[in-house]
Amino acid sequence: MAEREQGSIPSTVRYFEDFHVGQRDDLGSVVVTGADIVAFARQFDPQPFHVDPQAARASAFGGLVASGWHTASLFMRLYVERVLAHAASVLSAGVDDLRWLRPVRPGDTLSARATVLACTPSRTRPDRGTVRILGEMTNHRGELVLRLRSAIVFQRRPAAHSPRAVGGSY
Amino acid sequence: MAEREQGSIPSTVRYFEDFHVGQRDDLGSVVVTGADIVAFARQFDPQPFHVDPQAARASAFGGLVASGWHTASLFMRLYVERVLAHAASVLSAGVDDLRWLRPVRPGDTLSARATVLACTPSRTRPDRGTVRILGEMTNHRGELVLRLRSAIVFQRRPAAHSPRAVGGSY
Repeated sequence: MAEREQGSIPSTVRYFEDFHVGQRDDLGSVVVTGADIVAFARQFDPQPFHVDPQAARASAFGGLVASGWHTASLFMRLYVERVLAHAASVLSAGVDDLRWLRPVRPGDTLSARATVLACTPSRTRPDRGTVRILGEMTNHRGELVLRLRSAIVFQRRPAAHSPRAVGGSY
Repeated sequence: MAEREQGSIPSTVRYFEDFHVGQRDDLGSVVVTGADIVAFARQFDPQPFHVDPQAARASAFGGLVASGWHTASLFMRLYVERVLAHAASVLSAGVDDLRWLRPVRPGDTLSARATVLACTPSRTRPDRGTVRILGEMTNHRGELVLRLRSAIVFQRRPAAHSPRAVGGSY
């Protein structure tokens, strides 16, 4: 993630100041098919229980399950669509506590949410601040399947005294 | 990751006991193309600098860069091919300290390595143990682009007194 060109930021863009501790964004949901699971895993995680339905049935999972990296990437897609595409994000400062809590299986509908844990203005860059989020995905039975903590740097809202913001006379 | 069926474990399978602190596995390398970057990001991280070469040129990156989830998934592929495909792994206990240290660009060759940080026998499951690794990827200029810490649970080597191991007479 990096600074996006100003021109692509919609008028409703969210800045650092638009995030608040405890705020929760519903990120919508996505259905995962068996074909999705196999296609991802063939490229990135070719373990038998991700790519081979027969081997998966004989495994401890009893059937195909999604690669954890696939599930995490699906969370990212929802987070981009619902938050980053409408925000002045600068970069990702990384991820911690990435946990796969239950298997994701073909036909599962995964719903995601992001809860703001902390908002910290940069000490060195007055135009930036870091927002820490808890990301979670649940399946259609309401079971938590994915958890992560992520830190994203956003631009601060242009100051009220800036010419652009007030159409000032300088 | 989960228990793989015994029949799929090659004779050179690595068990928990085959990992040692400080041990480093060279995981080989992979070339990332612009088409790879766009294909992944269209599915999972559709930010302009991942999917649109023109918008990417106008961004702070100055050109297309890979989604961090793409880079992490490529690490996983190499780790599966070089380690997990030849080991009695049970599951992943999660990832921490996932950091994207430099952009990954079209044409980059990424080389990965995994260094064992700790080996901890399970206190509750005598047949298992957890191996913590530091995963790193560097580009062809030797610059670190990805870092992560991951905990993987492996089966312990079947005990020497087991009938199967010694062809014993019980």
